[in-house]
Amino acid sequence: MIKIEHIGIAVKSLEKSNPLFAKLLGKAHYKIEGVEREGVNTSFFEIGESKIELLEATRQDSPISKYIEKKGEGIHHIAFEVDDIHKAMALAQTLGFKLLSEEPKPGADNKLICFLHPKTTNGVLIELCQSIQQ
Amino acid sequence: MIKIEHIGIAVKSLEKSNPLFAKLLGKAHYKIEGVEREGVNTSFFEIGESKIELLEATRQDSPISKYIEKKGEGIHHIAFEVDDIHKAMALAQTLGFKLLSEEPKPGADNKLICFLHPKTTNGVLIELCQSIQQ
Repeated sequence: MIKIEHIGIAVKSLEKSNPLFAKLLGKAHYKIEGVEREGVNTSFFEIGESKIELLEATRQDSPISKYIEKKGEGIHHIAFEVDDIHKAMALAQTLGFKLLSEEPKPGADNKLICFLHPKTTNGVLIELCQSIQQ
Repeated sequence: MIKIEHIGIAVKSLEKSNPLFAKLLGKAHYKIEGVEREGVNTSFFEIGESKIELLEATRQDSPISKYIEKKGEGIHHIAFEVDDIHKAMALAQTLGFKLLSEEPKPGADNKLICFLHPKTTNGVLIELCQSIQQ
């Protein structure tokens, strides 16, 4: 694990939460990006070497809709940057962590990502992510 | 806000969770420290410029006991580093965030800290923290 790449926060509305986090962090979001497959719109704020990612559901069957229904708005996941997502996934599996997908998926902000099951990580949803070379 | 200083994770047992996070992060915790006033033991792991702080309750009326009872183990708070905690608290209040203490309190790992009420921060418990000069 190289660093905390971002912290994902589930929100009901980017329109309401973008200005709130801009006030808190002292700077505006630098991008908004949809991830259609996951049914989310995301916005990103820089903070040191890391980012805050706000996640808003775009449909009712989105994992973010379900999360907010169950737990309310709040911190959804921690993403750690890795050099090589395939190696990191293989290592995680060897160490006893359960992967939520067999192959890495494309994520927001030019990443290949894979989640670890929170039952194997103390209730914390962990994302591994590798930057895609452009 | 300078950077993510740490992410606080509520756990039932440091004894069980320290080796789990050591496997996940690829390195052991660098310190264990009690904060008697809050009824917690903490352990810290370095990751890039940030840290992971595991929090275990030492008594039943600890905020961490109550958190785990209500929500289970998981991400408890995000701490942002600030240069000057008094200025950061005054600014936060001016911007409409509610402070959970009127004065900064001593926290683990040589910090002065203040929490913002999650009702004013989209359900996210935010800690402001300033390093104490030694």
